[in-house]
Amino acid sequence: MAYFSKHYHAPGTAPGTLVSSDSDHKMSIHLIDYSGDHVEEQRLATAEECQDYLERDSKTWIQINGPVDANTLRALGDMFDLHDLALEDVLNSGQRPKMELYDDQVFLIAAMPMFDGERLEVVQVSLFAGADYLICLCPLEEDPFEPVRKRIRQPNNRRFTSRGIDYLLYAMLDLITDSAFPVLETFGDKLEEMEIELLEHPRKQTLTALHHLKRELLMLRRVLWPQREALTTLMRMENSLIHQDTLIYFRDCQDHSIQIIELLESFRDMATSMLDIYLSSISQKTNDTMRVLTIIATIFIPLTFIVGVYGMNFEHPDSPWAMPELGWYYGYPMVWGLIIAVTAGLIWFFKRRNWM
Amino acid sequence: MAYFSKHYHAPGTAPGTLVSSDSDHKMSIHLIDYSGDHVEEQRLATAEECQDYLERDSKTWIQINGPVDANTLRALGDMFDLHDLALEDVLNSGQRPKMELYDDQVFLIAAMPMFDGERLEVVQVSLFAGADYLICLCPLEEDPFEPVRKRIRQPNNRRFTSRGIDYLLYAMLDLITDSAFPVLETFGDKLEEMEIELLEHPRKQTLTALHHLKRELLMLRRVLWPQREALTTLMRMENSLIHQDTLIYFRDCQDHSIQIIELLESFRDMATSMLDIYLSSISQKTNDTMRVLTIIATIFIPLTFIVGVYGMNFEHPDSPWAMPELGWYYGYPMVWGLIIAVTAGLIWFFKRRNWM
Amino acid sequence: MAYFSKHYHAPGTAPGTLVSSDSDHKMSIHLIDYSGDHVEEQRLATAEECQDYLERDSKTWIQINGPVDANTLRALGDMFDLHDLALEDVLNSGQRPKMELYDDQVFLIAAMPMFDGERLEVVQVSLFAGADYLICLCPLEEDPFEPVRKRIRQPNNRRFTSRGIDYLLYAMLDLITDSAFPVLETFGDKLEEMEIELLEHPRKQTLTALHHLKRELLMLRRVLWPQREALTTLMRMENSLIHQDTLIYFRDCQDHSIQIIELLESFRDMATSMLDIYLSSISQKTNDTMRVLTIIATIFIPLTFIVGVYGMNFEHPDSPWAMPELGWYYGYPMVWGLIIAVTAGLIWFFKRRNWM
Amino acid sequence: MAYFSKHYHAPGTAPGTLVSSDSDHKMSIHLIDYSGDHVEEQRLATAEECQDYLERDSKTWIQINGPVDANTLRALGDMFDLHDLALEDVLNSGQRPKMELYDDQVFLIAAMPMFDGERLEVVQVSLFAGADYLICLCPLEEDPFEPVRKRIRQPNNRRFTSRGIDYLLYAMLDLITDSAFPVLETFGDKLEEMEIELLEHPRKQTLTALHHLKRELLMLRRVLWPQREALTTLMRMENSLIHQDTLIYFRDCQDHSIQIIELLESFRDMATSMLDIYLSSISQKTNDTMRVLTIIATIFIPLTFIVGVYGMNFEHPDSPWAMPELGWYYGYPMVWGLIIAVTAGLIWFFKRRNWM
Amino acid sequence: MAYFSKHYHAPGTAPGTLVSSDSDHKMSIHLIDYSGDHVEEQRLATAEECQDYLERDSKTWIQINGPVDANTLRALGDMFDLHDLALEDVLNSGQRPKMELYDDQVFLIAAMPMFDGERLEVVQVSLFAGADYLICLCPLEEDPFEPVRKRIRQPNNRRFTSRGIDYLLYAMLDLITDSAFPVLETFGDKLEEMEIELLEHPRKQTLTALHHLKRELLMLRRVLWPQREALTTLMRMENSLIHQDTLIYFRDCQDHSIQIIELLESFRDMATSMLDIYLSSISQKTNDTMRVLTIIATIFIPLTFIVGVYGMNFEHPDSPWAMPELGWYYGYPMVWGLIIAVTAGLIWFFKRRNWM
Repeated sequence: MAYFSKHYHAPGTAPGTLVSSDSDHKMSIHLIDYSGDHVEEQRLATAEECQDYLERDSKTWIQINGPVDANTLRALGDMFDLHDLALEDVLNSGQRPKMELYDDQVFLIAAMPMFDGERLEVVQVSLFAGADYLICLCPLEEDPFEPVRKRIRQPNNRRFTSRGIDYLLYAMLDLITDSAFPVLETFGDKLEEMEIELLEHPRKQTLTALHHLKRELLMLRRVLWPQREALTTLMRMENSLIHQDTLIYFRDCQDHSIQIIELLESFRDMATSMLDIYLSSISQKTNDTMRVLTIIATIFIPLTFIVGVYGMNFEHPDSPWAMPELGWYYGYPMVWGLIIAVTAGLIWFFKRRNWM
Repeated sequence: MAYFSKHYHAPGTAPGTLVSSDSDHKMSIHLIDYSGDHVEEQRLATAEECQDYLERDSKTWIQINGPVDANTLRALGDMFDLHDLALEDVLNSGQRPKMELYDDQVFLIAAMPMFDGERLEVVQVSLFAGADYLICLCPLEEDPFEPVRKRIRQPNNRRFTSRGIDYLLYAMLDLITDSAFPVLETFGDKLEEMEIELLEHPRKQTLTALHHLKRELLMLRRVLWPQREALTTLMRMENSLIHQDTLIYFRDCQDHSIQIIELLESFRDMATSMLDIYLSSISQKTNDTMRVLTIIATIFIPLTFIVGVYGMNFEHPDSPWAMPELGWYYGYPMVWGLIIAVTAGLIWFFKRRNWM
Repeated sequence: MAYFSKHYHAPGTAPGTLVSSDSDHKMSIHLIDYSGDHVEEQRLATAEECQDYLERDSKTWIQINGPVDANTLRALGDMFDLHDLALEDVLNSGQRPKMELYDDQVFLIAAMPMFDGERLEVVQVSLFAGADYLICLCPLEEDPFEPVRKRIRQPNNRRFTSRGIDYLLYAMLDLITDSAFPVLETFGDKLEEMEIELLEHPRKQTLTALHHLKRELLMLRRVLWPQREALTTLMRMENSLIHQDTLIYFRDCQDHSIQIIELLESFRDMATSMLDIYLSSISQKTNDTMRVLTIIATIFIPLTFIVGVYGMNFEHPDSPWAMPELGWYYGYPMVWGLIIAVTAGLIWFFKRRNWM
Repeated sequence: MAYFSKHYHAPGTAPGTLVSSDSDHKMSIHLIDYSGDHVEEQRLATAEECQDYLERDSKTWIQINGPVDANTLRALGDMFDLHDLALEDVLNSGQRPKMELYDDQVFLIAAMPMFDGERLEVVQVSLFAGADYLICLCPLEEDPFEPVRKRIRQPNNRRFTSRGIDYLLYAMLDLITDSAFPVLETFGDKLEEMEIELLEHPRKQTLTALHHLKRELLMLRRVLWPQREALTTLMRMENSLIHQDTLIYFRDCQDHSIQIIELLESFRDMATSMLDIYLSSISQKTNDTMRVLTIIATIFIPLTFIVGVYGMNFEHPDSPWAMPELGWYYGYPMVWGLIIAVTAGLIWFFKRRNWM
Repeated sequence: MAYFSKHYHAPGTAPGTLVSSDSDHKMSIHLIDYSGDHVEEQRLATAEECQDYLERDSKTWIQINGPVDANTLRALGDMFDLHDLALEDVLNSGQRPKMELYDDQVFLIAAMPMFDGERLEVVQVSLFAGADYLICLCPLEEDPFEPVRKRIRQPNNRRFTSRGIDYLLYAMLDLITDSAFPVLETFGDKLEEMEIELLEHPRKQTLTALHHLKRELLMLRRVLWPQREALTTLMRMENSLIHQDTLIYFRDCQDHSIQIIELLESFRDMATSMLDIYLSSISQKTNDTMRVLTIIATIFIPLTFIVGVYGMNFEHPDSPWAMPELGWYYGYPMVWGLIIAVTAGLIWFFKRRNWM
């Protein structure tokens, strides 16, 4: 995930300018219409085909997967009276999650975090909800909302189908919010691993991994904070769309949202703390290395000097001062005695300083 | 305590899905029914057995210890009209402490910190309180609320039994809140010990211990902050459940809750500060080691050079330049003079720099 | 961008004192008058020439580029009844972005960030908006608002021309706000580059670049925070100037403003984190260097001592103690054996400590 | 001052449980009764003796110094109708400062910092104030409120005696609040000293002292923050106890309270900054030491190699390759020439790198 | 500026106790009386002399420079009915800036930062403003408010003289607030210089200077935060003293106040960041030094060992093992070959590690 991942038009461009993204992925439109026991599903070729369902009394959910092209969007805009600014936001990915209320219509941009084993990706999901329809646009080719559809299709599940669009909206937002849990679980596991590595045998790779994790936590936090805010705005909104008895579900969703952010924050705190641990560990290692060097050098450098002394070639046939030690009977053992004495003294010194 | 310790269903699962945890521990149900001088206790085999007590005028406290199975929970849910989302939260441990108001019923998730000598554990306690009943679910096999029961059983203790369910709720929340004090006391003692260690002889183990403490403080803070919030919400709630004269007790409890969080925060501050102390100590030690090495090396390396010079084998029968010093009468003592002069000079230099 | 970049009069100077800046750049006045299908443009020599347009029913936009001189400003002040303090603010660059309401007139100071490839510059744009006029003063010689003018000139663009001054104000603020996106994109790219450099081969230049980036982020944040605030005040203002249906556009603009600040904050966080990475990398490198030195020194210093021993010149014709080893048959190979043994021992020691 | 210094009962204990502390100090009760010109003082043996004064119209101040025993407290509780929870708080020292309103009675727990030259102590003072009485409990044997009593005793001081209990309460809280000033003055002086030490010759002891100071600042802040809050609550309280014209005195007291906290915060900031200075100083010192070592080693190690070369014993009667230099006429001076050249070169190198 | 710079009485002293400071400076009283075209100035010997002017309809500004003695203050207090607590605050310097409203009188303590080229000083200015008088007490001997007086004296400046006391109060507060700008400009310049020094050749002095700057920024912030607050309180105050049309001037003043604090904060941020840069630079330098040492030592230590080997004196007339190399025809050149090979190998190693 890049530091700057927002698509934007050149400053000064008129609002509502729509430019299709040049992706290779294919767009697909999936419609599900339900009310009570009736559930009907269909794949649509163009957005206009959903016109028939709109006039009915039932609830209609239009799911558009893959990169939506500007024409489809414009068609949807005309049919459902969507605001130009909202349509622009759908196309320009990397938007800040937000909730916008247009008359009797709610527009939501949500961020769904996904972790594909190696890297974090945040998918922008756009939702339009009206009295009896919900349009969801998701740039992924594969539909992540299949679990919700499965719950609708299930026989005898009137608990879902007899409720209004607000319950469908909750179900989708709940899925989006909860999709952060597996990501955070992975991050938590990674943190545990790194912690053990750092405390036991810190390596440069651990540092790199820690930095990348910290970056991903930061990026995630950047989208999840406004998402929580949007959710709060949605719940506080004085609007007939959300019924009193669905509110408790939204509150549960918001609760998860808060817990996710608190987890994120504590992960960031720990990641920062671990960086300090790494630094301390490196310093400790340097200190250990240093101590070994100092012990060795401090012992052997003076000894080398001593033996160097007796390697000098002073020689004077008559002088009693010309290294007489060299000619002493016990000269050589005495030097060894000196060597041993110096070594013992230094070892004693190091022991006292707790260096050995 | 793991970084990520929440149990959750796969994103997209229907709300209110109940799955029993696969624990080996055994569930037990304990009922106590009291009012004025009357106190009755019973162990129940199934949740349904409490039905009789509900119709009475007295206050009924149902305590379920150990891992509750989904069926018992469903039975309770039917009897007491508990919300699906609340029941799901009871089973999925690692929830964020919270207070939820359903009509005339209060649902509370509280976190009870426990320290078993080695590691911190946070137990999730779930509480449902109605007009004349309180249901408490605690995953521990041994009942931590025995002290409260003892107070009820005590003869002449009408101060307790003649009060409403709100006083029982207070007694339990007070116990849960106060159970953080022994934990914090232990942490405080640990901090004192670590501080002494760090300032006197810092070791790598101290760093590891400090990091673990910091982690536990963070985890604890993550659950105690929302707990305090839940308590505040409970007190502000416009509900007939909590009477005016019990409120002062809740306020005392909230006061403890705030003090606990403030202690936590100051412990975290000190732990962070200690990490800096550790880093400084290591740097100081490296510096000390370095200085010893530098003194030894700086004194002996030049000396070794000097004696090396007179170990050279230049010899030329006729040349007056071929190391004439070697043949001088006082050559050898002069070299020693040079050695002593150099050593004295360097010692003077080190003294001036305050290195010795 | 300097740390302190504000122009100010000596403390105690009377408010509203106007002093022309002594810039070499030239001032130009450009007027555009529009309403519905009618669009008229003109370059003016003096501010007074705009008088004619004011009496008309149409909307008039007076754009003054380059450094405005005190006289022109005074003339404008008289014609449009601008407050002394506002005029002073126009001349004293480096003001804090703000929104001030004078009766039926709005005065805005906005900061437009620009990045010329090497350094960040923040241009102070001053805006006065009344019922049917907008005056914009920008110290740049080249007009950055050309894209807005282009949109007005465009045929059939009644969506713009039929709306009030508030829409023009939005268009200009939107351009100013959005001009932060390219700057942030550049910063984001720089951060990515630095990150790779820091993790792979940290150099001192990276540190300098990182520091400069951090500084620019800080400076940018200092002007963009109050700008967001000013925008919020503008939207909350109870004034007939901004119509209900333009408000949604301002909200979009404010949304961008918030996103920009969040990006800034996360960039700052990452820059700080990278500094820690740099420090860790340097420590790691020192440690590596240290290890190499220690290994080499620890192996060769003892060896040098050993060979030094046998370089001594002890000689006594009769003493069996005068370095008898020198005369042993296998003396020399035995020394080599000792050398190899010591080396092997030390290598084993280093391997065990994971230093090699 | 310990990290955890709170006394508490085992979790689950009934509220209002009173246990006398087992201190050796002696409790004393001192009563002062005044109104207008009348001032009467008395030492009481038991709390019950104050009964007589209560019925009078005058203001009664009961001061209990030293550790209060549970019985005296219970007697007071009965006479003045004090709440159980408040009495418990009096005995359990280490409470969080707070203000509690019981009907027409104010209960205050305040923290009075004292510095006995070596260590900081925070004394918990408990105050009960009613319409015409004030009870103050202070665990110190010596009464710190003597200055207030002196002001009451003073002849012609009707400014004090003719005012209500609220003015007495102010006088006591003012004394408690202001007692932080001498402590902070001491801390400020210590900081100045440490700063000079750190910048001039940092030692390990300075680090320890700095850490202890930081700890004391943190502990102090932990009690003074809630104290300020309690004061604010007291002033905002809608109660007849505090008159309009005394309020300005409380405001002055609160003002001091805020200034104390701001001083504390800035001291903490500086202490943290000093730790960084210490770390930098140590690094700088290591660097300096390092440079000396490097210079010496880099100069003499190559020289030692050179003289080592000519200490070799190659000798072959016929070979012109067997160290012919040793036999050259100017061999020895040439070696000295080489030594001087190498030294000069290295010195030039170090100068260029600014290491000398 | 000392860490603790507040003057205070011993805790427990009666409020309103006035003690003259024992300064050598001389007090002077200057009065200016104006209204419309009439301006009258006079130097007073005692405070009582201003009595005459009070009864007039005109506005009277009494400026007292230098250390005010307790008697003068008491006289002023009696004449203008000033509150005891306010008078005490005037004498006890080092007060927290604040705004206090006494009936129809405003009392302000403001902090005026001054930079005398070397050190920051914060002067406490006390202001009492009533319906038609303003008393200003400033401990400096030289009057810093001369520019305001000059503006009053100026002929035709009815814009000033015809306005009320509120405009005079604004003029003085504006001067006090704006006097922070030159100080901040100096600090900004210093920061720039330090930054260049730190990035190019960091020295210990830079660190000391940086620490001192940080300290001064902190001290400044400690007084300017409450000053801004006091200004806000003054503007929000429901009082007839400040007229609607002067309010915009106060808003401008408050705006400057906010900008000053934002500048301070960003300066502090940068100072902290620079400390990190310093630490990194020192580490980098240590690393560089280290590398040089390692390269030299690693190359020459093995070489010294090699030449040491051939300095050994093994000799055995018959043994073919007694250093036969010494007798080889090409022995000496071969050793040089070995030396060159080892050197080349190590240089290759260092190049590969990017150390050379």
